[in-house]
Amino acid sequence: MTEKDKFIEKAKENIEKLKQLKTEIHGTDFLRTWDHTKNDLEAVVYVAQALENMIKANISCQVFKGGLAISNFRDQSTRTRFSYSSAANLVGLANSEIDESKSQVAHGETVRETANMISFFAEFYGIRDDIFLGEGHKFQKEVSDAVADGFKQGVLNSKPPIINLQCDEDHPTQSLSDLIHIAQYFGGLENLKGKKIAMTWAFSPSYGKPLSVPQAIIALMTRFGMDVRLAHPEGYDLIPEIVDLAKKNAEENGGKFTQFNNMEDAFKDADIVYPKSWAPFVVMQERTKLLKQGNAVADQLKQLEKKCIEKNKEFIECDEEKMKLTKDGKALYMHCLPADITGVSCEHGEVSAQVFDKYRIDTYKEAGHKMYVISAMMLLTKFKDVPELLTQLIKENTPRKKAD
Amino acid sequence: MTEKDKFIEKAKENIEKLKQLKTEIHGTDFLRTWDHTKNDLEAVVYVAQALENMIKANISCQVFKGGLAISNFRDQSTRTRFSYSSAANLVGLANSEIDESKSQVAHGETVRETANMISFFAEFYGIRDDIFLGEGHKFQKEVSDAVADGFKQGVLNSKPPIINLQCDEDHPTQSLSDLIHIAQYFGGLENLKGKKIAMTWAFSPSYGKPLSVPQAIIALMTRFGMDVRLAHPEGYDLIPEIVDLAKKNAEENGGKFTQFNNMEDAFKDADIVYPKSWAPFVVMQERTKLLKQGNAVADQLKQLEKKCIEKNKEFIECDEEKMKLTKDGKALYMHCLPADITGVSCEHGEVSAQVFDKYRIDTYKEAGHKMYVISAMMLLTKFKDVPELLTQLIKENTPRKKAD
Amino acid sequence: MTEKDKFIEKAKENIEKLKQLKTEIHGTDFLRTWDHTKNDLEAVVYVAQALENMIKANISCQVFKGGLAISNFRDQSTRTRFSYSSAANLVGLANSEIDESKSQVAHGETVRETANMISFFAEFYGIRDDIFLGEGHKFQKEVSDAVADGFKQGVLNSKPPIINLQCDEDHPTQSLSDLIHIAQYFGGLENLKGKKIAMTWAFSPSYGKPLSVPQAIIALMTRFGMDVRLAHPEGYDLIPEIVDLAKKNAEENGGKFTQFNNMEDAFKDADIVYPKSWAPFVVMQERTKLLKQGNAVADQLKQLEKKCIEKNKEFIECDEEKMKLTKDGKALYMHCLPADITGVSCEHGEVSAQVFDKYRIDTYKEAGHKMYVISAMMLLTKFKDVPELLTQLIKENTPRKKAD
Repeated sequence: MTEKDKFIEKAKENIEKLKQLKTEIHGTDFLRTWDHTKNDLEAVVYVAQALENMIKANISCQVFKGGLAISNFRDQSTRTRFSYSSAANLVGLANSEIDESKSQVAHGETVRETANMISFFAEFYGIRDDIFLGEGHKFQKEVSDAVADGFKQGVLNSKPPIINLQCDEDHPTQSLSDLIHIAQYFGGLENLKGKKIAMTWAFSPSYGKPLSVPQAIIALMTRFGMDVRLAHPEGYDLIPEIVDLAKKNAEENGGKFTQFNNMEDAFKDADIVYPKSWAPFVVMQERTKLLKQGNAVADQLKQLEKKCIEKNKEFIECDEEKMKLTKDGKALYMHCLPADITGVSCEHGEVSAQVFDKYRIDTYKEAGHKMYVISAMMLLTKFKDVPELLTQLIKENTPRKKAD
Repeated sequence: MTEKDKFIEKAKENIEKLKQLKTEIHGTDFLRTWDHTKNDLEAVVYVAQALENMIKANISCQVFKGGLAISNFRDQSTRTRFSYSSAANLVGLANSEIDESKSQVAHGETVRETANMISFFAEFYGIRDDIFLGEGHKFQKEVSDAVADGFKQGVLNSKPPIINLQCDEDHPTQSLSDLIHIAQYFGGLENLKGKKIAMTWAFSPSYGKPLSVPQAIIALMTRFGMDVRLAHPEGYDLIPEIVDLAKKNAEENGGKFTQFNNMEDAFKDADIVYPKSWAPFVVMQERTKLLKQGNAVADQLKQLEKKCIEKNKEFIECDEEKMKLTKDGKALYMHCLPADITGVSCEHGEVSAQVFDKYRIDTYKEAGHKMYVISAMMLLTKFKDVPELLTQLIKENTPRKKAD
Repeated sequence: MTEKDKFIEKAKENIEKLKQLKTEIHGTDFLRTWDHTKNDLEAVVYVAQALENMIKANISCQVFKGGLAISNFRDQSTRTRFSYSSAANLVGLANSEIDESKSQVAHGETVRETANMISFFAEFYGIRDDIFLGEGHKFQKEVSDAVADGFKQGVLNSKPPIINLQCDEDHPTQSLSDLIHIAQYFGGLENLKGKKIAMTWAFSPSYGKPLSVPQAIIALMTRFGMDVRLAHPEGYDLIPEIVDLAKKNAEENGGKFTQFNNMEDAFKDADIVYPKSWAPFVVMQERTKLLKQGNAVADQLKQLEKKCIEKNKEFIECDEEKMKLTKDGKALYMHCLPADITGVSCEHGEVSAQVFDKYRIDTYKEAGHKMYVISAMMLLTKFKDVPELLTQLIKENTPRKKAD
């Protein structure tokens, strides 16, 4: 059996699992994992894995000949930006990014109008909008409504599904990549039940990191029956509704959700740890108010950040001592990257260099699933019968790269 | 008959009409509508409509496998930028935009040299240059001459046709989209004869809007025998040569061209109204002089704009009262977007919220033709026998999106 | 014989020559010409020429269906940027550029991490990093090591070859384009032996031009047995190790390498002249130190540049008088463009308007090879049997542009 055949076999297994699922994802957006059924989320996982295996088997997955995948990054991005443009290219689309500074958006044009104006040839519309609490998800909904109306009114040939590339509430392309990572680590989604995952706040010299990653993790992992342990110092709360959601998810899926106020307790006997910094909730609220007022209050913003850093003298870091508390002292360390590494990228950071270096390659692999997760969201929201579509691609077996 | 078959039928009708036309567009640039015969303009309309129907029939129109469509936006753009990159993608090219700030153009490199340096793999060269009176068209001609010389001298494999994405004189991708919009509204190009279209100045809080849209409209619509009514307050003249051209076009094509100094008179009994702001001609001339001097005269520029706004206290707006003056009170309202909407995007604008909202979807559809107009310009300037090319694409029937 | 057939014949001749060469380039990066055997360099030339002929024969050369060619331009670029995106498109890839200002690179993320994060779907990784002496090549090596490790560790499906789009030491895509240019001028690589090429410093009003072009020329042309004549005023030395390399190359390949301190002596009896400005070596060292300190020392940087310009009152320019010194008064003038042309782009420059204008078209053609050189580097570093690959493409004969 050749290498190629092995990957094709694996892809076929992924497709078989996919066939078992009754999904409701076709025709929807992908905004938050909690907008979707568990079957839909599993479908994303299996399609992503199938695509990864098909690409490794050198099978072209370009299902489009012409069409755009548009994107709007309202915040900096490297990983997600390249994952999105890779995913677009993988399915046969050109990535076209709207730069609001170069467009008339900056001139007060309405969201509704712009959304339609750039979507005439768009198959997908990816958005990152994660800076302001209470804004990002709202904006994505607004764009979704705008293009849905455009399609209904005959302006657009189709409604491009919106893909959330991180908002103030959720970061689904990240958390689903994380899910694939741990599913592979533990030998399958079915083995995650009862596994302890510690999502814990860690110190960072930068203020204003979004809450979306920890929120995404606690909301998603509880649905797979995991024992989710959230820890953070006082003042670093997440959005209360999402914490409640995590509790509910745990109850409904035979999982567990517990909160701690320090990293050590959360780490005890953990199978997985995810130490990561995020901004204080109150600061984020205050910051959102200030940011909306623009440059005029730049000084106040700086003072706010300074006050926070002063107050937060305790450098909570994931180091080897703390890792010893985890299951057999060797929990899987995870991070969405880039991590603030003590002594490497900053004086005091989220993780010690020793711990990070041990798991560096793992975190890189974790990140590598994202382009396939996005491709999977694209296929599942757009095509009715994805198992059939993938089967057809395997049958056609068009080489992505000409034979060597 | 399936949906697909219906669109194929429509495309074939467009191609039949195209076949009747003797065109001279192959091998030319598309800089201004008045550089082309009426047949050429009709050909753009029919090819654009054929392509729109073929895309709706899920037929791939990628006639290139490799090659670039380059673009140079010397002014902000959203709609036209995405229309151009969509058109490039539709015909199978990659869009590659030159950013003059990131290139050595900023270092005084000559237009001639840059034009050739970026065109080695370019099939088309789109340019927006609409800020300075007397500059935009000149620059496009310069680029055209440069690549024509490059081709003649054996530097380039072919001469990329230049496509005007708005200059100081004309905005042909806009006005031809507008033409398709009204042709569809009135049931065909042949029904436009005698229809009254009021191109009228309206107030806007922003100064410095180009004159190219009103100029494009009066120069183009007069060629289709329409009754074109231009209205603006004193001082808001268009380029005199283009006004003369509109008169001549009207005479030669059995149309009419009349000038008014207020919106009301122009609106009387109009079938179509196009109320839109533009800068005072004298201001544009003055502004061009100042802009050329750069930051040193920023203060003078601001004072000039302030003076204009003060002088222009009269807020001329298209509201429901004025719409009542039009034919049966229900003329088709048009705008190239984004419109300055009173109470929505500004305090006082070009149009009232009530009027705009009634026609909002129409203006969106109007904008939707642009990508097909650009694609049509691409095919017609590049390929000798476009009817045959389109017929071949329909025969091949390669799905743009894999079957669901 | 049709035009198409003629180009196919030529391409086949290029492929025949290629078949004679035993190469070691597959699986490597292309960082500096001196990292490669002479056979490898000749292979780049023949593949580039074959591709150019195939494109002229309207044969699609897209060997990929999906995949990215990523690029990182840490300095301005027009020619090389478009050459790289053209090359990517030519072989079937999408070009995706990392903009460090829009990414978290700016936040201290390590080179190693970013290199992997953007390479999950990358087939090639082009880098320009030419500003700081001692930095550019080092950075490219670091990226190469990072992705090599990523591949070894299972993070990446393949290791994207790094393509040097100009570093502080070499500019191989330029010098190999130059080599093709002179090979065509003199009827083949085999005719270059003994030809005199004068690489000479010329005055420019701008300070800080990299040393990479003159270094690239003296290191490459000496390998083809040319009589290389380097001339520059005191203080304008190149990196000493590369000058030594040029000497060694000349000895080993039956060539000659001589240094002069004025343009006139170097021009005497030259077949080719390449007058071009570069920064004083000591200034570049000093400048590198200052640039690393950022804005704080902006004043010192300006003073340094001012001092240099003052000191350098002698305007050394390539004019018609000096051209008379060359072989029969008609050596081939070369430049990597853009040239500083006296009276055109500046008051005093590298070359007089008379001389430049005579060779303008030649310099344009010289630049036109670059996209094919980059495509050739792509194919040769990635595919084992390139002669077979090209032969297969010719056999398939897929039209790049649909028949007219």
